[in-house]
Amino acid sequence: MFARRLAEDAARIQAHFDHVLAGADPLPVTQAMAYATEGGKRLRGFLVLESARLHEVAPDRSIWPATAIEALHAYSLVHDDLPCMDDDDLRRGRATVHRRWDEGTAVLAGDALQALAFELAAHPDCGPASVRADLALSLARASGAQGMVLGQALDMAAEQAPEPLTLAQITRLQAGKTGALIGWAACAGARLAGAEIAPLARYASALGLAFQIADDILDEEGDMEKAGKRLRKDAEAGKATFVSLLGLEGARARANELVAKAEAALDPYGLRADALREAARFVISRDS
Amino acid sequence: MFARRLAEDAARIQAHFDHVLAGADPLPVTQAMAYATEGGKRLRGFLVLESARLHEVAPDRSIWPATAIEALHAYSLVHDDLPCMDDDDLRRGRATVHRRWDEGTAVLAGDALQALAFELAAHPDCGPASVRADLALSLARASGAQGMVLGQALDMAAEQAPEPLTLAQITRLQAGKTGALIGWAACAGARLAGAEIAPLARYASALGLAFQIADDILDEEGDMEKAGKRLRKDAEAGKATFVSLLGLEGARARANELVAKAEAALDPYGLRADALREAARFVISRDS
Repeated sequence: MFARRLAEDAARIQAHFDHVLAGADPLPVTQAMAYATEGGKRLRGFLVLESARLHEVAPDRSIWPATAIEALHAYSLVHDDLPCMDDDDLRRGRATVHRRWDEGTAVLAGDALQALAFELAAHPDCGPASVRADLALSLARASGAQGMVLGQALDMAAEQAPEPLTLAQITRLQAGKTGALIGWAACAGARLAGAEIAPLARYASALGLAFQIADDILDEEGDMEKAGKRLRKDAEAGKATFVSLLGLEGARARANELVAKAEAALDPYGLRADALREAARFVISRDS
Repeated sequence: MFARRLAEDAARIQAHFDHVLAGADPLPVTQAMAYATEGGKRLRGFLVLESARLHEVAPDRSIWPATAIEALHAYSLVHDDLPCMDDDDLRRGRATVHRRWDEGTAVLAGDALQALAFELAAHPDCGPASVRADLALSLARASGAQGMVLGQALDMAAEQAPEPLTLAQITRLQAGKTGALIGWAACAGARLAGAEIAPLARYASALGLAFQIADDILDEEGDMEKAGKRLRKDAEAGKATFVSLLGLEGARARANELVAKAEAALDPYGLRADALREAARFVISRDS
Protein backbone atom coordinates (compact mmCIF):
# COMPACT_ATOMS: atom_id res chain seq x y z
CA MET A 1 0.00 0.00 0.00
CA PHE A 2 2.65 2.51 1.05
CA ALA A 3 5.08 1.14 -1.56
CA ARG A 4 2.41 1.60 -4.23
CA ARG A 5 1.72 5.19 -3.19
CA LEU A 6 5.46 5.95 -3.22
CA ALA A 7 5.78 4.38 -6.69
CA GLU A 8 2.75 6.31 -7.98
CA ASP A 9 4.14 9.60 -6.72
CA ALA A 10 7.56 8.75 -8.23
CA ALA A 11 5.90 8.10 -11.59
CA ARG A 12 4.04 11.42 -11.43
CA ILE A 13 7.30 13.25 -10.71
CA GLN A 14 9.02 11.46 -13.58
CA ALA A 15 6.20 12.42 -15.94
CA HIS A 16 6.56 16.03 -14.82
CA PHE A 17 10.31 15.95 -15.44
CA ASP A 18 9.62 14.57 -18.92
CA HIS A 19 7.19 17.45 -19.45
CA VAL A 20 9.47 20.26 -18.26
CA LEU A 21 12.59 18.89 -19.96
CA ALA A 22 10.83 18.28 -23.29
CA GLY A 23 11.92 20.61 -26.05
CA ALA A 24 15.40 21.24 -24.63
CA ASP A 25 18.26 21.43 -27.12
CA PRO A 26 19.59 17.87 -27.71
CA LEU A 27 22.99 18.55 -26.14
CA PRO A 28 25.02 16.32 -23.80
CA VAL A 29 24.19 18.68 -20.92
CA THR A 30 20.43 18.45 -21.36
CA GLN A 31 20.62 14.67 -21.93
CA ALA A 32 22.69 14.37 -18.74
CA MET A 33 20.11 16.46 -16.84
CA ALA A 34 17.32 14.06 -17.85
CA TYR A 35 19.50 11.02 -17.06
CA ALA A 36 20.34 12.36 -13.59
CA THR A 37 16.68 12.85 -12.72
CA GLU A 38 15.74 9.24 -13.56
CA GLY A 39 15.35 6.55 -10.91
CA GLY A 40 15.69 6.90 -7.18
CA LYS A 41 13.05 6.54 -4.50
CA ARG A 42 11.80 10.13 -4.84
CA LEU A 43 11.34 10.28 -1.08
CA ARG A 44 11.76 14.08 -1.04
CA GLY A 45 9.22 14.56 -3.81
CA PHE A 46 6.87 12.17 -2.02
CA LEU A 47 7.14 14.27 1.15
CA VAL A 48 6.15 17.38 -0.83
CA LEU A 49 3.15 15.67 -2.45
CA GLU A 50 1.96 14.05 0.80
CA SER A 51 2.39 17.15 2.96
CA ALA A 52 0.44 19.02 0.28
CA ARG A 53 -2.36 16.40 0.35
CA LEU A 54 -2.48 16.81 4.12
CA HIS A 55 -3.24 20.50 3.54
CA GLU A 56 -5.66 19.80 0.68
CA VAL A 57 -3.44 21.52 -1.86
CA ALA A 58 -4.25 20.52 -5.45
CA PRO A 59 -1.71 18.08 -6.93
CA ASP A 60 -1.24 20.23 -10.03
CA ARG A 61 0.26 22.85 -7.70
CA SER A 62 2.33 20.54 -5.48
CA ILE A 63 3.88 18.68 -8.42
CA TRP A 64 6.05 21.79 -9.08
CA PRO A 65 7.88 21.91 -5.73
CA ALA A 66 7.96 18.07 -5.67
CA THR A 67 9.86 18.11 -8.96
CA ALA A 68 11.95 21.08 -7.76
CA ILE A 69 13.29 19.23 -4.73
CA GLU A 70 14.09 16.16 -6.83
CA ALA A 71 15.97 18.37 -9.33
CA LEU A 72 17.93 19.88 -6.47
CA HIS A 73 18.65 16.45 -5.00
CA ALA A 74 19.75 15.17 -8.44
CA TYR A 75 22.16 18.12 -8.85
CA SER A 76 23.70 17.39 -5.44
CA LEU A 77 24.25 13.72 -6.39
CA VAL A 78 25.84 14.59 -9.76
CA HIS A 79 28.30 16.99 -8.11
CA ASP A 80 28.90 14.68 -5.10
CA ASP A 81 29.89 11.84 -7.43
CA LEU A 82 32.59 13.92 -9.21
CA PRO A 83 36.20 12.70 -8.95
CA CYS A 84 37.12 15.77 -6.87
CA MET A 85 34.31 14.95 -4.42
CA ASP A 86 33.35 11.32 -3.62
CA ASP A 87 34.63 9.93 -6.95
CA ASP A 88 31.84 7.42 -7.57
CA ASP A 89 31.22 5.38 -10.71
CA LEU A 90 27.81 4.01 -9.77
CA ARG A 91 24.57 5.77 -8.85
CA ARG A 92 21.05 4.35 -8.83
CA GLY A 93 22.53 1.23 -10.44
CA ARG A 94 23.95 3.06 -13.47
CA ALA A 95 27.11 4.89 -14.47
CA THR A 96 27.43 8.31 -12.82
CA VAL A 97 27.07 11.34 -15.13
CA HIS A 98 30.79 12.12 -15.34
CA ARG A 99 31.48 8.46 -16.23
CA ARG A 100 28.74 8.28 -18.86
CA TRP A 101 29.69 11.70 -20.31
CA ASP A 102 32.60 13.68 -18.82
CA GLU A 103 33.39 15.91 -15.85
CA GLY A 104 32.63 19.19 -17.60
CA THR A 105 29.20 17.92 -18.63
CA ALA A 106 28.57 16.73 -15.05
CA VAL A 107 29.49 20.13 -13.57
CA LEU A 108 27.24 21.96 -16.06
CA ALA A 109 24.34 19.50 -15.79
CA GLY A 110 24.42 19.85 -11.99
CA ASP A 111 24.51 23.63 -12.28
CA ALA A 112 21.55 23.61 -14.66
CA LEU A 113 19.58 21.23 -12.39
CA GLN A 114 20.06 23.64 -9.50
CA ALA A 115 18.72 26.51 -11.64
CA LEU A 116 15.85 24.26 -12.75
CA ALA A 117 14.95 23.59 -9.11
CA PHE A 118 14.43 27.31 -8.52
CA GLU A 119 12.56 27.70 -11.80
CA LEU A 120 10.13 25.00 -10.67
CA ALA A 121 9.82 26.27 -7.08
CA ALA A 122 9.00 29.80 -8.29
CA HIS A 123 6.76 28.64 -11.14
CA PRO A 124 3.46 30.51 -11.54
CA ASP A 125 1.50 27.23 -11.23
CA CYS A 126 2.74 26.78 -7.63
CA GLY A 127 0.17 29.33 -6.50
CA PRO A 128 0.10 32.95 -5.30
CA ALA A 129 3.27 35.06 -5.48
CA SER A 130 3.62 34.99 -1.69
CA VAL A 131 3.86 31.17 -1.81
CA ARG A 132 6.29 31.16 -4.75
CA ALA A 133 8.59 33.73 -3.12
CA ASP A 134 8.47 31.75 0.14
CA LEU A 135 9.23 28.44 -1.62
CA ALA A 136 12.17 29.93 -3.54
CA LEU A 137 13.67 31.70 -0.53
CA SER A 138 13.36 28.71 1.80
CA LEU A 139 14.75 26.37 -0.88
CA ALA A 140 17.77 28.65 -1.34
CA ARG A 141 18.37 28.66 2.41
CA ALA A 142 17.98 24.87 2.66
CA SER A 143 20.41 24.19 -0.18
CA GLY A 144 23.11 26.81 0.37
CA ALA A 145 26.01 27.43 2.73
CA GLN A 146 23.71 27.34 5.78
CA GLY A 147 22.01 24.13 4.69
CA MET A 148 23.04 21.29 2.39
CA VAL A 149 26.34 22.81 1.25
CA LEU A 150 27.28 23.49 4.88
CA GLY A 151 26.80 19.79 5.61
CA GLN A 152 28.96 18.85 2.62
CA ALA A 153 31.63 21.35 3.65
CA LEU A 154 31.68 19.97 7.20
CA ASP A 155 31.96 16.48 5.71
CA MET A 156 34.90 17.62 3.58
CA ALA A 157 36.57 19.27 6.58
CA ALA A 158 36.07 16.07 8.61
CA GLU A 159 38.25 14.16 6.14
CA GLN A 160 41.16 16.45 7.01
CA ALA A 161 40.50 16.47 10.75
CA PRO A 162 42.99 14.65 13.03
CA GLU A 163 40.20 13.07 15.13
CA PRO A 164 36.95 11.36 14.01
CA LEU A 165 33.85 13.49 14.57
CA THR A 166 31.79 13.26 17.75
CA LEU A 167 28.09 12.36 17.78
CA ALA A 168 27.16 16.03 18.15
CA GLN A 169 29.34 16.97 15.17
CA ILE A 170 27.98 14.20 12.94
CA THR A 171 24.44 15.16 13.90
CA ARG A 172 25.07 18.78 12.87
CA LEU A 173 26.78 17.68 9.65
CA GLN A 174 23.87 15.44 8.68
CA ALA A 175 21.25 18.01 9.64
CA GLY A 176 22.74 20.04 6.78
CA LYS A 177 23.77 17.35 4.33
CA THR A 178 20.52 15.36 4.22
CA GLY A 179 18.27 17.04 6.80
CA ALA A 180 17.88 20.42 5.14
CA LEU A 181 16.31 19.16 1.90
CA ILE A 182 14.14 16.59 3.71
CA GLY A 183 12.99 19.41 5.99
CA TRP A 184 12.14 21.65 3.05
CA ALA A 185 10.26 18.82 1.33
CA ALA A 186 8.13 17.96 4.37
CA CYS A 187 7.26 21.61 5.04
CA ALA A 188 6.45 22.41 1.39
CA GLY A 189 2.82 21.33 1.73
CA ALA A 190 2.28 23.77 4.59
CA ARG A 191 4.04 26.52 2.64
CA LEU A 192 1.80 25.86 -0.38
CA ALA A 193 -1.24 26.23 1.88
CA GLY A 194 0.14 29.22 3.78
CA ALA A 195 -0.23 27.10 6.94
CA GLU A 196 1.91 26.64 10.07
CA ILE A 197 5.09 24.70 9.27
CA ALA A 198 6.21 23.89 12.86
CA PRO A 199 4.69 20.37 13.23
CA LEU A 200 6.06 19.27 9.86
CA ALA A 201 9.45 20.80 10.67
CA ARG A 202 9.57 18.71 13.88
CA TYR A 203 8.54 15.60 11.93
CA ALA A 204 11.19 16.24 9.27
CA SER A 205 13.94 16.93 11.77
CA ALA A 206 13.49 13.47 13.36
CA LEU A 207 12.86 11.83 9.99
CA GLY A 208 16.01 13.31 8.41
CA LEU A 209 18.21 12.04 11.21
CA ALA A 210 16.55 8.59 11.14
CA PHE A 211 17.11 8.54 7.37
CA GLN A 212 20.81 9.20 7.80
CA ILE A 213 21.25 6.62 10.55
CA ALA A 214 19.50 4.09 8.28
CA ASP A 215 21.91 5.13 5.51
CA ASP A 216 24.87 4.45 7.76
CA ILE A 217 23.42 1.03 8.67
CA LEU A 218 22.89 0.28 4.96
CA ASP A 219 26.41 1.43 4.20
CA GLU A 220 27.64 -1.05 6.80
CA GLU A 221 25.56 -4.10 6.00
CA GLY A 222 23.60 -3.34 2.84
CA ASP A 223 23.66 -5.14 -0.48
CA MET A 224 25.48 -3.07 -3.11
CA GLU A 225 23.36 -4.60 -5.88
CA LYS A 226 20.15 -3.37 -4.24
CA ALA A 227 21.61 -0.05 -3.14
CA GLY A 228 22.77 0.71 -6.69
CA LYS A 229 25.81 2.57 -5.38
CA ARG A 230 29.17 1.88 -3.78
CA LEU A 231 28.94 0.96 -0.07
CA ARG A 232 31.40 0.70 2.83
CA LYS A 233 32.96 4.02 1.75
CA ASP A 234 32.92 5.63 5.16
CA ALA A 235 34.42 2.64 6.95
CA GLU A 236 37.18 2.41 4.32
CA ALA A 237 37.92 6.10 4.73
CA GLY A 238 37.99 5.71 8.54
CA LYS A 239 35.18 8.26 8.89
CA ALA A 240 32.96 8.34 11.96
CA THR A 241 29.34 7.34 11.30
CA PHE A 242 26.31 6.76 13.52
CA VAL A 243 27.19 3.06 13.37
CA SER A 244 30.84 3.54 14.32
CA LEU A 245 29.78 5.78 17.22
CA LEU A 246 26.69 3.94 18.48
CA GLY A 247 27.30 0.39 17.25
CA LEU A 248 24.82 -1.40 14.97
CA GLU A 249 22.31 -2.15 17.74
CA GLY A 250 22.63 1.31 19.25
CA ALA A 251 22.12 2.91 15.83
CA ARG A 252 19.00 0.78 15.21
CA ALA A 253 17.57 1.72 18.60
CA ARG A 254 18.22 5.41 17.98
CA ALA A 255 16.60 5.23 14.53
CA ASN A 256 13.51 3.59 16.06
CA GLU A 257 13.28 6.32 18.71
CA LEU A 258 13.49 8.98 16.02
CA VAL A 259 10.75 7.36 13.96
CA ALA A 260 8.49 7.32 17.03
CA LYS A 261 9.32 11.01 17.54
CA ALA A 262 8.56 11.77 13.90
CA GLU A 263 5.21 9.96 14.15
CA ALA A 264 4.31 11.80 17.34
CA ALA A 265 5.04 15.15 15.70
CA LEU A 266 2.17 14.38 13.30
CA ASP A 267 -0.42 14.08 16.10
CA PRO A 268 -2.02 17.45 15.28
CA TYR A 269 -3.04 16.07 11.87
CA GLY A 270 -4.66 12.85 13.12
CA LEU A 271 -5.19 9.94 10.74
CA ARG A 272 -4.81 12.14 7.66
CA ALA A 273 -1.03 12.02 8.20
CA ASP A 274 -0.81 8.22 8.00
CA ALA A 275 1.10 8.26 4.70
CA LEU A 276 3.75 10.46 6.31
CA ARG A 277 3.86 8.10 9.33
CA GLU A 278 4.42 5.18 6.99
CA ALA A 279 7.15 7.15 5.24
CA ALA A 280 8.97 7.45 8.55
CA ARG A 281 8.79 3.69 9.12
CA PHE A 282 9.81 3.06 5.50
CA VAL A 283 12.91 5.22 5.90
CA ILE A 284 14.46 2.84 8.44
CA SER A 285 13.33 -0.40 6.77
CA ARG A 286 14.40 0.25 3.16
CA ASP A 287 17.17 -1.75 1.49
CA SER A 288 18.27 0.98 -0.94
CA MET B 1 32.38 60.60 -13.69
CA PHE B 2 31.07 57.27 -15.03
CA ALA B 3 34.11 55.43 -13.68
CA ARG B 4 33.43 56.93 -10.24
CA ARG B 5 29.79 55.86 -10.30
CA LEU B 6 30.78 52.34 -11.36
CA ALA B 7 33.36 52.20 -8.56
CA GLU B 8 30.85 53.51 -5.99
CA ASP B 9 28.28 50.91 -6.99
CA ALA B 10 30.96 48.20 -6.89
CA ALA B 11 31.90 49.27 -3.36
CA ARG B 12 28.24 49.16 -2.25
CA ILE B 13 27.88 45.65 -3.65
CA GLN B 14 31.08 44.56 -1.90
CA ALA B 15 29.82 45.98 1.40
CA HIS B 16 26.57 44.07 0.93
CA PHE B 17 28.46 40.84 0.27
CA ASP B 18 30.46 41.47 3.45
CA HIS B 19 27.16 41.93 5.28
CA VAL B 20 25.40 38.82 3.97
CA LEU B 21 28.45 36.56 4.26
CA ALA B 22 29.31 37.72 7.79
CA GLY B 23 28.72 35.11 10.43
CA ALA B 24 29.23 32.14 8.12
CA ASP B 25 31.12 29.16 9.53
CA PRO B 26 34.88 29.72 8.95
CA LEU B 27 35.27 26.83 6.52
CA PRO B 28 37.26 26.69 3.26
CA VAL B 29 33.99 26.76 1.31
CA THR B 30 32.70 29.95 2.91
CA GLN B 31 36.12 31.59 2.64
CA ALA B 32 36.23 30.62 -1.04
CA MET B 33 32.75 32.09 -1.56
CA ALA B 34 33.88 35.45 -0.16
CA TYR B 35 37.11 35.33 -2.19
CA ALA B 36 35.24 34.59 -5.42
CA THR B 37 32.95 37.59 -4.94
CA GLU B 38 35.84 40.05 -4.54
CA GLY B 39 37.09 42.25 -7.36
CA GLY B 40 35.73 42.55 -10.88
CA LYS B 41 34.00 45.45 -12.55
CA ARG B 42 30.56 44.58 -11.15
CA LEU B 43 29.01 45.62 -14.45
CA ARG B 44 25.99 43.34 -13.91
CA GLY B 45 25.37 44.70 -10.41
CA PHE B 46 25.78 48.24 -11.75
CA LEU B 47 23.10 47.55 -14.38
CA VAL B 48 20.70 46.41 -11.63
CA LEU B 49 21.36 49.49 -9.48
CA GLU B 50 21.14 51.93 -12.40
CA SER B 51 18.02 50.41 -13.96
CA ALA B 52 16.48 50.59 -10.48
CA ARG B 53 17.44 54.29 -10.14
CA LEU B 54 15.82 54.89 -13.50
CA HIS B 55 12.58 53.55 -12.01
CA GLU B 56 13.06 55.39 -8.71
CA VAL B 57 13.41 52.16 -6.76
CA ALA B 58 15.07 52.66 -3.35
CA PRO B 59 18.70 51.47 -3.30
CA ASP B 60 18.09 49.40 -0.15
CA ARG B 61 15.78 47.27 -2.30
CA SER B 62 17.90 47.12 -5.48
CA ILE B 63 21.10 46.19 -3.62
CA TRP B 64 19.63 42.67 -3.13
CA PRO B 65 19.23 41.72 -6.79
CA ALA B 66 22.47 43.61 -7.60
CA THR B 67 24.34 41.36 -5.18
CA ALA B 68 22.35 38.33 -6.40
CA ILE B 69 23.51 38.72 -10.00
CA GLU B 70 27.12 39.21 -8.90
CA ALA B 71 26.89 36.03 -6.78
CA LEU B 72 25.54 34.17 -9.78
CA HIS B 73 28.27 35.59 -12.04
CA ALA B 74 30.92 34.65 -9.46
CA TYR B 75 29.64 31.06 -9.30
CA SER B 76 29.82 30.79 -13.10
CA LEU B 77 33.43 31.99 -13.10
CA VAL B 78 34.49 29.58 -10.33
CA HIS B 79 33.02 26.61 -12.20
CA ASP B 80 34.24 27.87 -15.63
CA ASP B 81 37.80 28.02 -14.33
CA LEU B 82 37.81 24.37 -13.17
CA PRO B 83 40.32 21.99 -14.81
CA CYS B 84 37.45 20.07 -16.46
CA MET B 85 36.12 23.31 -17.97
CA ASP B 86 38.50 26.11 -19.09
CA ASP B 87 41.31 25.11 -16.70
CA ASP B 88 42.41 28.61 -15.70
CA ASP B 89 44.89 29.56 -12.98
CA LEU B 90 44.25 33.31 -12.99
CA ARG B 91 41.05 35.29 -12.44
CA ARG B 92 40.71 38.99 -11.59
CA GLY B 93 44.50 39.04 -11.18
CA ARG B 94 44.57 36.34 -8.49
CA ALA B 95 44.72 32.56 -8.25
CA THR B 96 41.46 30.86 -9.22
CA VAL B 97 39.51 29.18 -6.39
CA HIS B 98 40.55 25.60 -7.26
CA ARG B 99 44.22 26.73 -7.38
CA ARG B 100 44.01 28.61 -4.09
CA TRP B 101 42.02 25.80 -2.39
CA ASP B 102 41.16 22.63 -4.33
CA GLU B 103 38.66 21.41 -6.91
CA GLY B 104 36.14 20.04 -4.42
CA THR B 105 36.06 23.38 -2.60
CA ALA B 106 35.61 25.19 -5.93
CA VAL B 107 32.68 22.98 -6.94
CA LEU B 108 30.96 23.46 -3.56
CA ALA B 109 31.68 27.19 -3.33
CA GLY B 110 30.20 27.68 -6.80
CA ASP B 111 27.15 25.62 -5.85
CA ALA B 112 26.65 27.67 -2.68
CA LEU B 113 27.05 30.96 -4.59
CA GLN B 114 24.30 29.89 -6.96
CA ALA B 115 22.01 29.14 -4.00
CA LEU B 116 23.01 32.49 -2.45
CA ALA B 117 22.00 34.28 -5.66
CA PHE B 118 18.45 32.93 -5.33
CA GLU B 119 18.38 33.68 -1.61
CA LEU B 120 19.23 37.32 -2.38
CA ALA B 121 16.85 37.62 -5.35
CA ALA B 122 13.92 36.28 -3.29
CA HIS B 123 14.86 38.20 -0.14
CA PRO B 124 11.98 39.95 1.66
CA ASP B 125 13.79 43.32 1.38
CA CYS B 126 13.54 43.20 -2.43
CA GLY B 127 9.91 44.27 -2.16
CA PRO B 128 6.45 42.73 -2.55
CA ALA B 129 6.11 38.95 -3.02
CA SER B 130 5.09 39.43 -6.66
CA VAL B 131 8.43 41.14 -7.35
CA ARG B 132 10.45 38.54 -5.41
CA ALA B 133 8.78 35.62 -7.20
CA ASP B 134 9.32 37.35 -10.55
CA LEU B 135 13.00 38.05 -9.80
CA ALA B 136 13.66 34.46 -8.69
CA LEU B 137 11.83 32.87 -11.64
CA SER B 138 13.46 35.11 -14.25
CA LEU B 139 16.89 34.61 -12.68
CA ALA B 140 16.44 30.82 -12.80
CA ARG B 141 15.48 31.02 -16.47
CA ALA B 142 18.41 33.33 -17.30
CA SER B 143 20.96 31.10 -15.59
CA GLY B 144 19.75 27.60 -16.49
CA ALA B 145 19.69 25.31 -19.50
CA GLN B 146 17.79 27.87 -21.59
CA GLY B 147 20.12 30.73 -20.63
CA MET B 148 23.69 30.85 -19.39
CA VAL B 149 24.22 27.09 -19.12
CA LEU B 150 22.86 26.65 -22.65
CA GLY B 151 25.54 29.08 -23.89
CA GLN B 152 28.22 27.17 -22.01
CA ALA B 153 26.94 23.86 -23.34
CA LEU B 154 26.98 25.20 -26.91
CA ASP B 155 30.52 26.44 -26.31
CA MET B 156 31.54 22.99 -25.08
CA ALA B 157 29.89 21.33 -28.10
CA ALA B 158 31.71 23.77 -30.41
CA GLU B 159 35.05 22.44 -29.21
CA GLN B 160 34.12 19.00 -30.52
CA ALA B 161 32.59 20.27 -33.78
CA PRO B 162 34.46 19.55 -37.04
CA GLU B 163 33.90 23.11 -38.36
CA PRO B 164 34.30 26.48 -36.60
CA LEU B 165 30.96 28.10 -35.72
CA THR B 166 29.24 30.56 -38.01
CA LEU B 167 28.38 34.13 -37.01
CA ALA B 168 24.76 33.12 -36.33
CA GLN B 169 25.88 30.22 -34.12
CA ILE B 170 28.34 32.36 -32.15
CA THR B 171 25.70 35.02 -31.68
CA ARG B 172 23.26 32.44 -30.24
CA LEU B 173 25.98 30.94 -28.03
CA GLN B 174 26.91 34.34 -26.61
CA ALA B 175 23.30 35.41 -26.15
CA GLY B 176 23.19 32.60 -23.59
CA LYS B 177 26.68 32.63 -22.19
CA THR B 178 26.99 36.34 -21.40
CA GLY B 179 23.77 37.88 -22.73
CA ALA B 180 21.30 36.16 -20.42
CA LEU B 181 22.73 37.50 -17.15
CA ILE B 182 23.35 40.98 -18.60
CA GLY B 183 19.76 40.96 -19.79
CA TRP B 184 18.45 39.96 -16.38
CA ALA B 185 20.57 42.66 -14.71
CA ALA B 186 19.39 45.47 -16.99
CA CYS B 187 15.73 44.46 -16.63
CA ALA B 188 15.87 44.03 -12.84
CA GLY B 189 15.10 47.70 -12.16
CA ALA B 190 11.89 47.46 -14.18
CA ARG B 191 10.98 44.20 -12.43
CA LEU B 192 11.54 45.84 -9.03
CA ALA B 193 9.19 48.64 -10.04
CA GLY B 194 6.64 46.33 -11.68
CA ALA B 195 7.24 48.32 -14.89
CA GLU B 196 7.54 47.37 -18.57
CA ILE B 197 10.80 45.53 -19.26
CA ALA B 198 10.79 45.69 -23.08
CA PRO B 199 12.97 48.83 -23.62
CA LEU B 200 15.58 47.59 -21.13
CA ALA B 201 15.50 44.12 -22.72
CA ARG B 202 16.26 45.69 -26.12
CA TYR B 203 19.06 47.76 -24.57
CA ALA B 204 20.55 44.70 -22.85
CA SER B 205 20.36 42.53 -25.95
CA ALA B 206 22.54 44.98 -27.91
CA LEU B 207 24.76 45.70 -24.89
CA GLY B 208 25.39 42.00 -24.20
CA LEU B 209 26.50 41.33 -27.74
CA ALA B 210 28.70 44.47 -27.79
CA PHE B 211 30.21 43.28 -24.50
CA GLN B 212 31.11 39.91 -25.99
CA ILE B 213 32.59 41.41 -29.16
CA ALA B 214 34.69 43.72 -26.98
CA ASP B 215 35.76 40.65 -24.99
CA ASP B 216 36.89 38.93 -28.19
CA ILE B 217 38.84 42.07 -29.20
CA LEU B 218 40.44 42.20 -25.73
CA ASP B 219 41.24 38.50 -25.95
CA GLU B 220 43.03 39.24 -29.24
CA GLU B 221 44.94 42.40 -28.41
CA GLY B 222 44.50 43.04 -24.70
CA ASP B 223 47.11 43.26 -21.96
CA MET B 224 47.02 40.18 -19.74
CA GLU B 225 48.29 42.21 -16.77
CA LYS B 226 45.32 44.59 -17.01
CA ALA B 227 42.81 41.87 -17.88
CA GLY B 228 43.83 39.83 -14.83
CA LYS B 229 43.18 36.57 -16.68
CA ARG B 230 44.68 34.42 -19.40
CA LEU B 231 44.14 35.79 -22.91
CA ARG B 232 44.48 34.43 -26.47
CA LYS B 233 42.74 31.22 -25.34
CA ASP B 234 40.25 31.09 -28.21
CA ALA B 235 42.85 31.69 -30.91
CA GLU B 236 45.08 29.00 -29.42
CA ALA B 237 42.16 26.58 -29.33
CA GLY B 238 41.29 27.44 -32.95
CA LYS B 239 37.80 28.57 -31.87
CA ALA B 240 35.76 30.98 -33.97
CA THR B 241 35.25 34.40 -32.37
CA PHE B 242 33.69 37.64 -33.55
CA VAL B 243 37.23 38.78 -34.40
CA SER B 244 38.10 35.64 -36.39
CA LEU B 245 34.82 35.95 -38.30
CA LEU B 246 34.62 39.72 -38.81
CA GLY B 247 38.26 40.82 -38.55
CA LEU B 248 39.44 43.36 -35.95
CA GLU B 249 38.07 46.38 -37.83
CA GLY B 250 34.81 44.64 -38.67
CA ALA B 251 34.36 43.59 -35.05
CA ARG B 252 35.01 47.16 -33.84
CA ALA B 253 32.50 48.55 -36.33
CA ARG B 254 29.86 46.00 -35.26
CA ALA B 255 30.44 46.79 -31.58
CA ASN B 256 29.98 50.51 -32.29
CA GLU B 257 26.72 49.85 -34.15
CA LEU B 258 25.45 47.78 -31.24
CA VAL B 259 26.30 50.51 -28.73
CA ALA B 260 24.36 53.02 -30.85
CA LYS B 261 21.45 50.56 -30.89
CA ALA B 262 21.65 50.10 -27.12
CA GLU B 263 21.65 53.87 -26.59
CA ALA B 264 18.68 54.31 -28.93
CA ALA B 265 16.71 51.66 -26.98
CA LEU B 266 16.90 54.02 -23.99
CA ASP B 267 15.12 56.87 -25.80
CA PRO B 268 11.85 56.36 -23.86
CA TYR B 269 13.68 57.26 -20.64
CA GLY B 270 15.28 60.50 -21.88
CA LEU B 271 18.26 61.94 -20.05
CA ARG B 272 17.59 59.91 -16.89
CA ALA B 273 19.14 56.92 -18.65
CA ASP B 274 22.49 58.62 -19.27
CA ALA B 275 24.37 56.35 -16.83
CA LEU B 276 23.15 53.32 -18.77
CA ARG B 277 24.20 55.00 -22.05
CA GLU B 278 27.65 55.58 -20.61
CA ALA B 279 27.75 51.95 -19.50
CA ALA B 280 27.20 50.92 -23.12
CA ARG B 281 30.12 53.09 -24.30
CA PHE B 282 32.25 51.85 -21.41
CA VAL B 283 31.66 48.23 -22.38
CA ILE B 284 33.50 48.62 -25.70
CA SER B 285 36.27 50.91 -24.41
CA ARG B 286 37.35 48.97 -21.29
CA ASP B 287 40.78 47.38 -21.04
CA SER B 288 39.78 44.60 -18.64
